[in-house]
Amino acid sequence: MISELQKEQTVIGFFAVKEIMEKETRETRKKYLDLTLLDGSGQINGKVWDIADVIQGEIPGVGDIVKVDALVQEYRGSLQLKVNKLRKATDADSYEKQKIIPAAPAPAEQMLETILRFAEEIADQPLRAACLHIIHKYKGQIMTHPAAKTRHHSYKSGWLQHVTTMLLVAEKLTTIYSCNKDLLYAGIIFHDIGKLQELKSDQLCVGIEYSTVGELLGHISLGLAEMETVPNLDSQRKHLLQHMILSHHENPEWGSPVKPMFKEAELLHLLDLMDTRMFDFEKCTKPLEKGALSGKVYELDRKIYNPLI
Amino acid sequence: MISELQKEQTVIGFFAVKEIMEKETRETRKKYLDLTLLDGSGQINGKVWDIADVIQGEIPGVGDIVKVDALVQEYRGSLQLKVNKLRKATDADSYEKQKIIPAAPAPAEQMLETILRFAEEIADQPLRAACLHIIHKYKGQIMTHPAAKTRHHSYKSGWLQHVTTMLLVAEKLTTIYSCNKDLLYAGIIFHDIGKLQELKSDQLCVGIEYSTVGELLGHISLGLAEMETVPNLDSQRKHLLQHMILSHHENPEWGSPVKPMFKEAELLHLLDLMDTRMFDFEKCTKPLEKGALSGKVYELDRKIYNPLI
Amino acid sequence: MISELQKEQTVIGFFAVKEIMEKETRETRKKYLDLTLLDGSGQINGKVWDIADVIQGEIPGVGDIVKVDALVQEYRGSLQLKVNKLRKATDADSYEKQKIIPAAPAPAEQMLETILRFAEEIADQPLRAACLHIIHKYKGQIMTHPAAKTRHHSYKSGWLQHVTTMLLVAEKLTTIYSCNKDLLYAGIIFHDIGKLQELKSDQLCVGIEYSTVGELLGHISLGLAEMETVPNLDSQRKHLLQHMILSHHENPEWGSPVKPMFKEAELLHLLDLMDTRMFDFEKCTKPLEKGALSGKVYELDRKIYNPLI
Amino acid sequence: MISELQKEQTVIGFFAVKEIMEKETRETRKKYLDLTLLDGSGQINGKVWDIADVIQGEIPGVGDIVKVDALVQEYRGSLQLKVNKLRKATDADSYEKQKIIPAAPAPAEQMLETILRFAEEIADQPLRAACLHIIHKYKGQIMTHPAAKTRHHSYKSGWLQHVTTMLLVAEKLTTIYSCNKDLLYAGIIFHDIGKLQELKSDQLCVGIEYSTVGELLGHISLGLAEMETVPNLDSQRKHLLQHMILSHHENPEWGSPVKPMFKEAELLHLLDLMDTRMFDFEKCTKPLEKGALSGKVYELDRKIYNPLI
Amino acid sequence: MISELQKEQTVIGFFAVKEIMEKETRETRKKYLDLTLLDGSGQINGKVWDIADVIQGEIPGVGDIVKVDALVQEYRGSLQLKVNKLRKATDADSYEKQKIIPAAPAPAEQMLETILRFAEEIADQPLRAACLHIIHKYKGQIMTHPAAKTRHHSYKSGWLQHVTTMLLVAEKLTTIYSCNKDLLYAGIIFHDIGKLQELKSDQLCVGIEYSTVGELLGHISLGLAEMETVPNLDSQRKHLLQHMILSHHENPEWGSPVKPMFKEAELLHLLDLMDTRMFDFEKCTKPLEKGALSGKVYELDRKIYNPLI
Amino acid sequence: MISELQKEQTVIGFFAVKEIMEKETRETRKKYLDLTLLDGSGQINGKVWDIADVIQGEIPGVGDIVKVDALVQEYRGSLQLKVNKLRKATDADSYEKQKIIPAAPAPAEQMLETILRFAEEIADQPLRAACLHIIHKYKGQIMTHPAAKTRHHSYKSGWLQHVTTMLLVAEKLTTIYSCNKDLLYAGIIFHDIGKLQELKSDQLCVGIEYSTVGELLGHISLGLAEMETVPNLDSQRKHLLQHMILSHHENPEWGSPVKPMFKEAELLHLLDLMDTRMFDFEKCTKPLEKGALSGKVYELDRKIYNPLI
Repeated sequence: MISELQKEQTVIGFFAVKEIMEKETRETRKKYLDLTLLDGSGQINGKVWDIADVIQGEIPGVGDIVKVDALVQEYRGSLQLKVNKLRKATDADSYEKQKIIPAAPAPAEQMLETILRFAEEIADQPLRAACLHIIHKYKGQIMTHPAAKTRHHSYKSGWLQHVTTMLLVAEKLTTIYSCNKDLLYAGIIFHDIGKLQELKSDQLCVGIEYSTVGELLGHISLGLAEMETVPNLDSQRKHLLQHMILSHHENPEWGSPVKPMFKEAELLHLLDLMDTRMFDFEKCTKPLEKGALSGKVYELDRKIYNPLI
Repeated sequence: MISELQKEQTVIGFFAVKEIMEKETRETRKKYLDLTLLDGSGQINGKVWDIADVIQGEIPGVGDIVKVDALVQEYRGSLQLKVNKLRKATDADSYEKQKIIPAAPAPAEQMLETILRFAEEIADQPLRAACLHIIHKYKGQIMTHPAAKTRHHSYKSGWLQHVTTMLLVAEKLTTIYSCNKDLLYAGIIFHDIGKLQELKSDQLCVGIEYSTVGELLGHISLGLAEMETVPNLDSQRKHLLQHMILSHHENPEWGSPVKPMFKEAELLHLLDLMDTRMFDFEKCTKPLEKGALSGKVYELDRKIYNPLI
Repeated sequence: MISELQKEQTVIGFFAVKEIMEKETRETRKKYLDLTLLDGSGQINGKVWDIADVIQGEIPGVGDIVKVDALVQEYRGSLQLKVNKLRKATDADSYEKQKIIPAAPAPAEQMLETILRFAEEIADQPLRAACLHIIHKYKGQIMTHPAAKTRHHSYKSGWLQHVTTMLLVAEKLTTIYSCNKDLLYAGIIFHDIGKLQELKSDQLCVGIEYSTVGELLGHISLGLAEMETVPNLDSQRKHLLQHMILSHHENPEWGSPVKPMFKEAELLHLLDLMDTRMFDFEKCTKPLEKGALSGKVYELDRKIYNPLI
Repeated sequence: MISELQKEQTVIGFFAVKEIMEKETRETRKKYLDLTLLDGSGQINGKVWDIADVIQGEIPGVGDIVKVDALVQEYRGSLQLKVNKLRKATDADSYEKQKIIPAAPAPAEQMLETILRFAEEIADQPLRAACLHIIHKYKGQIMTHPAAKTRHHSYKSGWLQHVTTMLLVAEKLTTIYSCNKDLLYAGIIFHDIGKLQELKSDQLCVGIEYSTVGELLGHISLGLAEMETVPNLDSQRKHLLQHMILSHHENPEWGSPVKPMFKEAELLHLLDLMDTRMFDFEKCTKPLEKGALSGKVYELDRKIYNPLI
Repeated sequence: MISELQKEQTVIGFFAVKEIMEKETRETRKKYLDLTLLDGSGQINGKVWDIADVIQGEIPGVGDIVKVDALVQEYRGSLQLKVNKLRKATDADSYEKQKIIPAAPAPAEQMLETILRFAEEIADQPLRAACLHIIHKYKGQIMTHPAAKTRHHSYKSGWLQHVTTMLLVAEKLTTIYSCNKDLLYAGIIFHDIGKLQELKSDQLCVGIEYSTVGELLGHISLGLAEMETVPNLDSQRKHLLQHMILSHHENPEWGSPVKPMFKEAELLHLLDLMDTRMFDFEKCTKPLEKGALSGKVYELDRKIYNPLI
Repeated sequence: MISELQKEQTVIGFFAVKEIMEKETRETRKKYLDLTLLDGSGQINGKVWDIADVIQGEIPGVGDIVKVDALVQEYRGSLQLKVNKLRKATDADSYEKQKIIPAAPAPAEQMLETILRFAEEIADQPLRAACLHIIHKYKGQIMTHPAAKTRHHSYKSGWLQHVTTMLLVAEKLTTIYSCNKDLLYAGIIFHDIGKLQELKSDQLCVGIEYSTVGELLGHISLGLAEMETVPNLDSQRKHLLQHMILSHHENPEWGSPVKPMFKEAELLHLLDLMDTRMFDFEKCTKPLEKGALSGKVYELDRKIYNPLI
């Protein structure tokens, strides 16, 4: 993994191409390739000084998986790859695409179908229409959008994974706790809609950044404003959904100026919290052996233990 | 309801007998009955000055439901009933027992069966044995014990209702989030075991009070200590369950010195939170009309709204 | 003043009519008037049992100032006026209308002119247009709307007084601190626009209440949403103003999920704070003698001292 | 700038001499010069190994601006200049003195005149005398003293700039908010008087440090104690000014054990806050391009945005 | 006790005279006495309508203990005594003076001797001189001054009791923890010196109030300022004592802007805390039976338990 | 000291052997020694490549003090000793054992005697038996156990030093503040008993770590559970001691879910706080010259000053 590379080491591995550009050396005017390569653990700059010698077959493009043989060097305090050999990966190669470009485990198409199924099951016509409107409006973007910058579901199709998992849990819970399912499903579908504007992401969903408007307003306010643009929604339903968006982090310090004031808003908050916590525990427990304690885990602000049983 | 009585009003209604005692007036040495009556809204002292005239049929005992015709009077700043007529309620009377002696909606026997079913389903032998041990140890007490003094499930069999509902929710959730079901079920069964010592309650579960040891140690520490007495439990399992008890309120300010450090402990915390919040929302929303806002609700530290849809 | 009335006292004074209704006594079917009267200190219910005898001249209407001679009685724990004489006030009467119906010291028309002058001085065309649009949209409402429920400027035309004072201060400050005056003026005009929806007020601006949507979303979110409806505003300007609205309370605990991120947003926050603090100090110092200390002042969360010099 | 120097780089630039000392090498007993040079961005040690060869003209003294040609070297983990050529700067050289020795933009003499003008305008004789006394007492020191160690106005004459700007703002504000101008002006002049003892600074106001008594007591307590030494001040006025000093940070966590209890004390707090915030925003926005977001800004505990308009 | 009196009750008891004034009834111009009487539990107004009949022997003066026979009446919402008989207490009467006028258990003279003994034992001449100076300066006042308004030692000679107990504890502790005893003793003597100005008290030390300067500055700042007036104290010692005064509450929220920075300052803080806590526990445990729990105790912000052993 | 070693330096000094192992080089199969050496300032790895040449006399064992002559080298980013000469220290060598293996200043045997003396002085039989039981149970472990991982008394026999000092202080204080000495002594002996399980330490008490159960439960909960295992202790005494253990950190954020509810519990808290503060001040003041200020001290969260007097 990129994060484990060390100076002077030789590495052979599979990476994704995040950026690729042909440049010229300042003095000798010789062409070379300037690359940004990444895998699930991070990214690194690479140089192909002698294109003809190094590149085998076609020159790869952004998003291609490549096999690389390179020397790790230090340049101005950062590590860099001096590439000795590079070729596009083929079906014959054995690598885990998931580890190179992290993404939700289920295919985006299938998750989209799930979210659409729930939207269509909403009995209340205006809420159903609002949900279908927003899913169709952002259909393109949600197929790949992450759910966060660095924390839970911060990878390709993370937004879709987060929302569909919450819908599936909601379906279960409403068999035990009585509530307005239509309102709850709609609230889940809309609650993070502002993240589509708050976060900017490249096509590979690796370099996730906050957009300027994301910094100025935050996803909760952006979601609230988004509700104003949903056509044909009466003000009671609009205000209920705006309240659910506004209160889903529950606390002022976590970005919610008001607390949930009806049961579906409270459930939305708890389902959101549960899905992020379960994600973080899953992720942080995986690398731990049975009986081992982690160091302080940033996402959860505590150490994690993996029970022996 | 008792809480709504006003001075000088005449009231006819059904109440439960919490206390009943024959006394004598100081000077005339005449016998009278001193009663404490209660319903779901509170309790009140009552006097039967002329026993023969007032009591119809048998003199009722503690726990009986009685029909009362009385005048509300003020005595030394408190309201008191001067009872004109009183008789034990019969099957012919129409009153809601649930409103007079609040209790969990399902019968305690049925809930006990549920909790036993879950305990028996635990595959891990030591955890199963520990759960069955504790249920059998406190079988008598849990049939009526409340789950809190004034907040959620603070009525007859509330402890059992809280634990069984959490088990049912856990059963659903573990179909979506992978975890060690045995540990989670055992954690749920044990998490509030200390409340059996922390709270003292009369047979009708109305006058719930903290016991002295409850004030000195709190239910979390009492539960922790209880674990020391479970026979044949290896230290790994004992420590896991003690950690789950210790961390289930999650925050130091809420009584948990450590945060949940494994997934089942975190889920336990979230399920506990969800069950109490759903209970409180249900209770506080019920008296609200559609579209109405409540005043500040103490349990939830916010106002509650009942949506129009 | 109404707040100082005591049981069994006879009072002669001037009040405003907040509500007036003709009713009938239950048994004798005699007509009487049921009134709500108010002055700057509070409100009180009154009864005119013998209309012909008590009312001199025309029966007054809502909003009229009346002269009342009455006996203060207690009824079910509240004070009530048994009116002996009542007539509409005339120009010959000497009373301070300001003390009876509290309102901003300057006429609303003059403050409206001020706010319009500032809006027209904005050099940036889109910001100017947005400000003029919103002033004209709410022209009717802002003439009387209060700026708060119970704290600063919580009286007739308080909203307009707060905004215009802040504009006048901004005009001064920008001669010392360089900043974008257009943005600052527009931010001031829009910052409390959500209060027009958050607060409901009767015509006399006394019974100020939060609206349901005010409770669900709060004036900051309502202002944010309002910005979505301003026509022809490019997204940079819209986002700047939304950020100013969002951040003007500065702290999450005071309702602002983000802190001011540019100078004009910071100045807006400081000017808002200064205007409310100066208002509260002025109001709370007025009743204090020189050299006197007040008790704890709720609005300012401290005691106030009136210096001897 | 010094902060941007990198190992092995050759630099030619203008710096101020903070320290200069003739020393001898341990073994060869050869004389060399040990220098501390600084500019607005930081400071660096320098060595002149061959004095005769390197120094052109007179050897410079502390506070002189010099032109230096040197090689940047690393020595025991720190950068150091091996000076090749060094001479005192002349009027013919083009450099910005302000960038080398940062200082308030206006001349100290002019600011002193402003503060004196305000002091003389105070109508109340004892307050006027107290202000004139303190200005004259510290006349020498305030000409150069900074207003802080690392935050706002932490450069030459920063104290004077902070106080005079606040006076100018106060003059404007008191045309809108009524208050006792004499008290406000005196409060402004005295509020940071304790900083003259709290901070120690070399003549160039670069190496600003807290004094021991500054650490033990802080500038607020030192200012309070200073008031005890003002001659001929009655106790009411002394206590008012002490209260203003004590409360001007408003919150216990910011060093004020009491909150402002009269209007002038509150205004002092707000003016102080405003002047520091405006300073910090100005400083942090300057290096940002239009439309750019900064990283987290330490002084303001947030990111800063430079609007496009 | 006065706090337990009830309307229409007849009371015979011993009280202290806090105020006594001869007045005239408005209409009949008849002379009567207007009294304020107090005991350890509170105070009450009393009227002697028929002086000749009621008063036996000499008319008592302020501070006298009197025996009173009176009827408790309600007047304008407060209780009042209609005095039937009143005479000065004699040595023959059996009452506990301590319960009527609460005071420190040891005689003030003896405590003064103790504090003087410690001051004279200080080996460091300037610290010894400073301590003796301040004790002699306030010799009159400290004989009766309380140590607080409503909390620990808020009675006659409470200040002296608090300081001398701390000195005695310090003497013991310094046999175990090494420190500068001179500095510690001096710090204890000076730490609450500002309370002499912060609190105003009548001669009987019952109506304890904050003075205006106490509200404006607080006892910590007043103590700090007091140090400026101690003659012949070098600045190191003055600053050390000022730091001890300033930091003895340890936390900004408790009034200390700086934390203790040397061992003696830390010990002072801990000794102060210990003496107040021990006082409060003693006072709050006394009325509790063995095995009983108190309600929430305001001073300690918790319930108190009296152990069975 | 180890913490001050620098690359390429030659060092001659005394260290303790923490680990020693004979290994073989991978290729040449030559035997060498792999050592971990430590002194009071830290630990370092060392290699003895040529055993015969380097080791003088016997090969040392774990816990031996050795005299080492070595070269400091960097290997994979860490410092390492290439040992030139090494021999066991003899009585003729002059080194301070205390500086090499930090430990409590008094011998453990003597402290054990002290703690036993106090336990035997407890008049209450059940408390005395409980204390003697626990001391005898952990007699082996407490002889060397530290009292903390990195803060106060985090060295050999630190636990014993902390407990015995507190007992000595308690003995003094109870001559001034009345309380149940038996309960206080027992509380002191038990309060940190959970640390024996919470902390794992090697024989030299240098590498102190939290155990897994220490992380999961913390020493307070472990102490609480330990009390369940004390034989023949009635529940009142058990609950009192459990409450004392539980509340001795006083605040939820410091690990105590309840505050001390009786005087002995409060005193325990204050004595614990005092002993740790005195320890930390002593340790942090020692390296400071008279009149010097430290940097921010982590343990005390403040700077420390060493007074000139």
